[in-house]
Amino acid sequence: MAARSLQEPIRIAMLGCGGLGKAAAQIIGMKRECRLVAICDSTGYALDPDGLDTETLAALTTDIASGYRRPARRSPLAARSAAAGVATASGLDIAAADDPLQELLERAELFDAVFVALPNLPNEFIPSVTQRFLRRSTGLVYVDVLKRTGAVAQMYALDDQVQRARSVYLTGCGATPGLLSAAAVLAAQSFITVESVEIWWGVGIANWAQHKATIREDIAHLPGYTVERAKAMTDAEVDALLEQTNGRLELHHMEHADDLLLERAGVVDRRAQVEVGGVMDTRHARKPVTTTMTLTGITFEGRRSSHRFVLGDETTMAANVIGPALGYLKRGAWLRDRGVHGVFGSTEVLPMVMR
Amino acid sequence: MAARSLQEPIRIAMLGCGGLGKAAAQIIGMKRECRLVAICDSTGYALDPDGLDTETLAALTTDIASGYRRPARRSPLAARSAAAGVATASGLDIAAADDPLQELLERAELFDAVFVALPNLPNEFIPSVTQRFLRRSTGLVYVDVLKRTGAVAQMYALDDQVQRARSVYLTGCGATPGLLSAAAVLAAQSFITVESVEIWWGVGIANWAQHKATIREDIAHLPGYTVERAKAMTDAEVDALLEQTNGRLELHHMEHADDLLLERAGVVDRRAQVEVGGVMDTRHARKPVTTTMTLTGITFEGRRSSHRFVLGDETTMAANVIGPALGYLKRGAWLRDRGVHGVFGSTEVLPMVMR
Repeated sequence: MAARSLQEPIRIAMLGCGGLGKAAAQIIGMKRECRLVAICDSTGYALDPDGLDTETLAALTTDIASGYRRPARRSPLAARSAAAGVATASGLDIAAADDPLQELLERAELFDAVFVALPNLPNEFIPSVTQRFLRRSTGLVYVDVLKRTGAVAQMYALDDQVQRARSVYLTGCGATPGLLSAAAVLAAQSFITVESVEIWWGVGIANWAQHKATIREDIAHLPGYTVERAKAMTDAEVDALLEQTNGRLELHHMEHADDLLLERAGVVDRRAQVEVGGVMDTRHARKPVTTTMTLTGITFEGRRSSHRFVLGDETTMAANVIGPALGYLKRGAWLRDRGVHGVFGSTEVLPMVMR
Repeated sequence: MAARSLQEPIRIAMLGCGGLGKAAAQIIGMKRECRLVAICDSTGYALDPDGLDTETLAALTTDIASGYRRPARRSPLAARSAAAGVATASGLDIAAADDPLQELLERAELFDAVFVALPNLPNEFIPSVTQRFLRRSTGLVYVDVLKRTGAVAQMYALDDQVQRARSVYLTGCGATPGLLSAAAVLAAQSFITVESVEIWWGVGIANWAQHKATIREDIAHLPGYTVERAKAMTDAEVDALLEQTNGRLELHHMEHADDLLLERAGVVDRRAQVEVGGVMDTRHARKPVTTTMTLTGITFEGRRSSHRFVLGDETTMAANVIGPALGYLKRGAWLRDRGVHGVFGSTEVLPMVMR
C-alpha cells in the first residue's frame, strides 16, 4: 500500500464492538486526524470509506453486539458509498455475516490501520486474527490493548510475519500496559539501576454490563480462576461473584505484560521486579483507589529514590486505554511511512534505556 | 559512516566539561552500552578510541576546564591508542589546542555520537558548533540538553542540514525540557483537549561553583536580567546576588522550550498554555521543592482532570538531565540505523498525540 500523506486522516478499522470498541468509536469521532471506516464483531460488520458517522454507529454497534441477524439492508451510508464509486459488497455497507473478518479483509484497501479491541480470551484469539490480516494485506498499522503477558508474548512471535507484510504492530498500548509502562520507561532514565516498578490501578464503572469482557479478564486473575473458567461464566454467575465482594475485585500479582514490556525495554532485568495490582469497583463510577506507577531505583550517586506517575481520579478506563492506543497508532503510521516495520511494545517507541 | 551494530557500545564525544559534562562522563563510565571516547572544551581536548578511563578523565576535565595550557604531553592513554594503530594528532590524545573542536572534527570517524553539554550562552553558540560538525561529518547522532525556547528553535532550523548529513539531532533532552515534557506527552493521551501544562522544579546544589553555567542560565530568567548580562557576571557578582536571596533563585514564567516542544508534539495549541518555573537553592543539596509536571485537560466524557509526574526528591539535577539525554541518544542511534534522519525534539520520539 502506498504511504498516504499524514495530512489525510488515518482510516481505522475497528475489530470488536464491546465496551471498549464503542468508546473507541466515540473518541475517534472526536478526532480530525483519524476516521473510523470499518467495524466488526463476530456477527457482522459495517464499512463506510467516508467514515461511519456517530449516530449510525451508535445504533449499529448495538445491533452487532447483540447479535445482528437481520437481512442486509441499505443504509443512508450505502448511498454515500455508492455515490463515491467505492466497491462494497452488493452495495451494502452494513451487514450480518458468517465471517465478518473476511468481509473486512476483502476491503483492506479502504483502511490504513487496525485497532484491535477484541476480547483477549483466549490468548490465541488475537494472534490468529492478526495472522489472517498479515497473510492478506501489506502496509497496515495495528494497535492492540492486550494486557496479559502471555498474550503480548504471542504478538512478539509474529514479528517476522509483520516485517514481511511491511507492517507495524504495536502491542500492549492501553493504560497498563501502555500509558503506565511508558511512564516507567521515562522514570527509569534518572537511575543507574531500577529496583522495582509498582503499578496500582483503580477503575470504577457504574454498570459492568458495559464491559463484560474486561470484567471477565479481571476475574481470571483471582486466585482459583483461569482464563477459560472466567470466559465460561454466565452473566448471572458474574453477578453472583460480585455480590460476594460487594461489587469489588481486588487483584494482586496480576499476570500483566508490563513485566515483559519493561524487560524488553531494559528497564528491569527480571520480570519479578514488576508488580501489577488494582481494585475494580463494578458499582460506582468513582475510582476506588488512585492509579499510580511508582518506579524505585538507585541513582549514579548511589541514592535510592522513586519517581511517580499519577492519573487523575476523574479519568476513566476508557479515556486512559483508548487515548494512548490512538497515540501509539499514530506513531505506528509514522514508523511505517519511514520504512520501519515489525512488532513493537508500548515501551519501545520512547527514549531508550542506556544500560 | 556505516551503521555499527547495536551490540557495540555507542562511542560518544562530549562537547563541554563543566559540571554537566563531568557528571555525564561519570555516568557514561557506569554504562556498558556507551563509551566516552572524546571530550573537549574551549581550551583543549582528550581522545581515546578505547574509552577515556574515569581516573584520567577526572584529572583531565579539571585540567581542561581550568584552562589547560601546558604543552601537549604523552599520557598512558596515548600509548594505548598508538598500539591500537589509531591515528591521533602526533600520537597524542590529550592536548591543549587553539581550536579543540577542529581537533575532534578531524577524528570524527572515531565516534558515533555527540553529547552537547556546552553552556547555552549565547543561544547561537551551539547551533554554530553543530554546523561545523554537520559540514564535516555524516551519520552522527547528536543530543543536547538545551533549555531556552529560542535555543531549541535554532536547532530545528538546522533540520535540512541534519538530513543532508544523514544524521539525527535530538534537542531539549534534559530534565525540563526532556523528561518532564515527555511525561506531558504521555499524560496528554488521556484527554481530548489539554488546558495547561505546569512544570515546577526544585534543584538543590551544595556548591554552585560546580554549576557555573547553569546558575547563570537561571539568573538570566530573573526580572531585569538578560542572557548577556548574566553571562557577563563575575563569580563575585553572582555571589553578591545570591547573598541577597539567601542563596535561592525563584523563577516564574521561564522562557523554557517545553512550550515549543509541546506545541510541536500537538499537546498544546498555544505556547502560553505551558508554564515553567522553579526554585534553585545554591546552598543546600536538598531540593527546596518537589519537581512536578501537572497536565490538566478535558476527557472525551467532558471531565476535567490532571495527571501528574513527580520526581523523587533524592534525585539530582545531574541524574535527571544526563540519564534522559543518554536515553534519547540511544533512540537517536536507533533511528539513524533505520535511515530516519532530521532534528527531533524530546517530545517527538514518543507515542504521538492523535488530534
